[in-house]
Amino acid sequence: MWIRNAWFVAGWANEVTREKPLARVLLNEPVVIYRKADGTPVALEDRCCHRLAPLSIGRIEGDELRCMYHGLKFDASGKCTEIPGQDRIPPSMKVRSFPLVEKQKLLWIWMGDPALARESDILDWPYLDHPDWSYKPSYLHYKANYLLIVDNLLDFSHLSFVHEHTIGSMSLAETRAQIDRTPYGLKIWRILDNDVTPAFVRKLRNVGERADRWNIYDWHARGNILAMDSGFAPLGTGGHQGARENAVQFRHLSVQTPETANTTHYFFGHPQALAPGNAELDEQLLKTVTTAFIEDKDIIEAQQRIIDLDPNVRMQAIVHDSALFQGRRIIEGLIEDQAVAAE
Amino acid sequence: MWIRNAWFVAGWANEVTREKPLARVLLNEPVVIYRKADGTPVALEDRCCHRLAPLSIGRIEGDELRCMYHGLKFDASGKCTEIPGQDRIPPSMKVRSFPLVEKQKLLWIWMGDPALARESDILDWPYLDHPDWSYKPSYLHYKANYLLIVDNLLDFSHLSFVHEHTIGSMSLAETRAQIDRTPYGLKIWRILDNDVTPAFVRKLRNVGERADRWNIYDWHARGNILAMDSGFAPLGTGGHQGARENAVQFRHLSVQTPETANTTHYFFGHPQALAPGNAELDEQLLKTVTTAFIEDKDIIEAQQRIIDLDPNVRMQAIVHDSALFQGRRIIEGLIEDQAVAAE
Amino acid sequence: MWIRNAWFVAGWANEVTREKPLARVLLNEPVVIYRKADGTPVALEDRCCHRLAPLSIGRIEGDELRCMYHGLKFDASGKCTEIPGQDRIPPSMKVRSFPLVEKQKLLWIWMGDPALARESDILDWPYLDHPDWSYKPSYLHYKANYLLIVDNLLDFSHLSFVHEHTIGSMSLAETRAQIDRTPYGLKIWRILDNDVTPAFVRKLRNVGERADRWNIYDWHARGNILAMDSGFAPLGTGGHQGARENAVQFRHLSVQTPETANTTHYFFGHPQALAPGNAELDEQLLKTVTTAFIEDKDIIEAQQRIIDLDPNVRMQAIVHDSALFQGRRIIEGLIEDQAVAAE
Repeated sequence: MWIRNAWFVAGWANEVTREKPLARVLLNEPVVIYRKADGTPVALEDRCCHRLAPLSIGRIEGDELRCMYHGLKFDASGKCTEIPGQDRIPPSMKVRSFPLVEKQKLLWIWMGDPALARESDILDWPYLDHPDWSYKPSYLHYKANYLLIVDNLLDFSHLSFVHEHTIGSMSLAETRAQIDRTPYGLKIWRILDNDVTPAFVRKLRNVGERADRWNIYDWHARGNILAMDSGFAPLGTGGHQGARENAVQFRHLSVQTPETANTTHYFFGHPQALAPGNAELDEQLLKTVTTAFIEDKDIIEAQQRIIDLDPNVRMQAIVHDSALFQGRRIIEGLIEDQAVAAE
Repeated sequence: MWIRNAWFVAGWANEVTREKPLARVLLNEPVVIYRKADGTPVALEDRCCHRLAPLSIGRIEGDELRCMYHGLKFDASGKCTEIPGQDRIPPSMKVRSFPLVEKQKLLWIWMGDPALARESDILDWPYLDHPDWSYKPSYLHYKANYLLIVDNLLDFSHLSFVHEHTIGSMSLAETRAQIDRTPYGLKIWRILDNDVTPAFVRKLRNVGERADRWNIYDWHARGNILAMDSGFAPLGTGGHQGARENAVQFRHLSVQTPETANTTHYFFGHPQALAPGNAELDEQLLKTVTTAFIEDKDIIEAQQRIIDLDPNVRMQAIVHDSALFQGRRIIEGLIEDQAVAAE
Repeated sequence: MWIRNAWFVAGWANEVTREKPLARVLLNEPVVIYRKADGTPVALEDRCCHRLAPLSIGRIEGDELRCMYHGLKFDASGKCTEIPGQDRIPPSMKVRSFPLVEKQKLLWIWMGDPALARESDILDWPYLDHPDWSYKPSYLHYKANYLLIVDNLLDFSHLSFVHEHTIGSMSLAETRAQIDRTPYGLKIWRILDNDVTPAFVRKLRNVGERADRWNIYDWHARGNILAMDSGFAPLGTGGHQGARENAVQFRHLSVQTPETANTTHYFFGHPQALAPGNAELDEQLLKTVTTAFIEDKDIIEAQQRIIDLDPNVRMQAIVHDSALFQGRRIIEGLIEDQAVAAE
């Protein structure tokens, strides 16, 4: 169904405070996230081992979390440290704890075998907390299986149709992308030297009527991560490989974390370096991106409803599905490896 | 579950335009209906063969329909005629097309074996598009299996109870109907010579305080069609077999098309010949009919909810169920024949 | 799943009138309750034996109930007494009737083997219709299995946490209760001689700054009934065993009747004897009780949602679960006995 041995985004760092635990279903399991006194975020099974009440209705006390049904208290490792009115605490009284790392404004959780969790495997993407870049952290809730969203992101042939009146009108949509296998997934990229500069870009900074464009996506199969590097550099300055000081540059990160078999958490950010800290520009860019993302969401959720009517109907491939098929095959391979390893 | 080899009503002709395809689930299958340039209506499987997105979100281009996910185009036969960015189109790239005929303001679809679809089998009922008759095309969505509605229509013993305060107060409700087997279903009729003329009829046209009445229903098992011919003729002028010029006449058509196992499309019209084109009268008659139909809908949907609580409880027959039982037996027989033929 | 051979509360007596039958699903079965001409309440299967329509949409006629689909009439024993248009009524035309007794403002129904129903087994709790006591009859609908509610009522260790800001702040919450097995279930009680009198009690009647308190619960496994006797007597007057004239006394009754496997009817009343007939005081006490009950409902419904995510996760016991475990074991035993008896 999905890869378990991977770092998934559990939420934006600012969703979790000291005041109130955050409840979130991830990979079909109830998870509660809270912060310890020093701010370290903690992820536990959101299900008290006593009567199965959600700990997320509970209370943060120091570094621990108290269930507000019968008062059992759990530390950050999931061990029960207090049962009101009972002296001995059996070692079986515990909830599962999940490796959780706060990095670059995101909370990364490991739902698989904890022995395999290595912090160094977490995505390094500095644009989310770099002083030269700013953006507004965003989220969409999808009523669709995560694979349908992954399909959509790995496929650019939908741009001209789904986004006909928004981002699909750009010449980018008409250019075949190059697809390379990477150790962690796929690299999908387009270089368009000497292309027409869109009006909205020239408004942001005058890079000339024509510019050298690039659009480079890094897709990571584990965690369903898509990281983009795109921009417009003044003609002949070397494009994405040259000095970028005078370019208009964007970054984008889209991450899908399965909630259930048919629903998905979608986290995204769209950093810009033109005017870091300019909340108005961040808001404007978010609005543009969200308009296009809602177009995707509408078609993907409709697609899910059609699939639900008869889940046995098979899809048929077209030439443009190359990246999408490679993506699906990588995910399936990792799920199979996982199943073999679990035997 | 239902007869497949039959012409079902897919919609009113005026529901389908050149601007926007119509999405409708029929017999549990997603169907999209649109019009070609010359106005001919076309019904295709509402599921692109590529990624299973609904074509009904697509765009009508000439005689064809383009999927607005990746731009695949399909002709009226369901054949894919264009895959953007791909030269060769494999013959397997197609969606199912369904025989669809526009006749007398209704769209008739054939969801079964196309080899068996004969246009001449479609109901001929001229009152829906005859200049001497007018009505307002209507629709109800039922949260109930279609058989519960068929039961209701074949059964007049419910009139005095469900419609106690509306149409049930008429003497018609108290007269036992005659039931004849026809080649396509049942004929259920009542002739009441020299009966009291209801006040609302005399308001429409003064046919006298007493009149010769008739009420003739033709029920077609294939397609779940009930066609009524009813009226009030001046005494001694021959009733429904005589000259009808001075009579008050009504026609009625009720058709049920299964949507899913537990939901049904209900199309109906109630033509009058007293004042063709009088929209106010059409509206008034529709209001009366709809009031009674909502009474049926309330009890049938409540019946479905009770059945859902325990689907194993069996119904027990009463004498009045004769038409209803004959109707159910005809439908069951046709479903069995179909199963045998499919072997 | 539940005990069938028991008297369950079907509703408050004032919910059922002569005008309109009451529809209620009890133990997953549709039940209709109405009153005969002399006021006697009757409970029948809410499913006409003819076409399975709900009789609760029907009409009360004298002592009988008429189905408003086809007019079949049923007497209080469930026997069909009239089929419009049909002379002979086969003996199989009947609906199930359930023993139903109106006692002390409640309607008690027996859904199991009628041969085992003995009226003398119905709870005798005079406070619901005694002139010296008054209260406002109340009801909550729970989206949870009844056992989770029973657990909650048999367990006082949740008071300090769920009801931290309401009733949990009382010293009662800190005192271990005594639990005795009774012939019908459990007796859970606490006696606190010379305890601080809460302010709200002193406002009602000045029993002194300190008082002798008692809190005695009688829980009945059959019918899921919890009856409370609690109070505050002036110091040294003998507490609950002494003269109670000068005490502040409360009674409470909470009853759970399963609706479906995952929903429950919860009836309750909280009689006071301080000012019988004082509707304002009744309303004020109800408000206080309901505030606490909503706190329970919130956590129990959340608990049910977590259980639904993975019904296989097992609960783990703590010392405080003693009453709760005894209660569950008694219920399980009675369900097993019932299964054996049914073989």
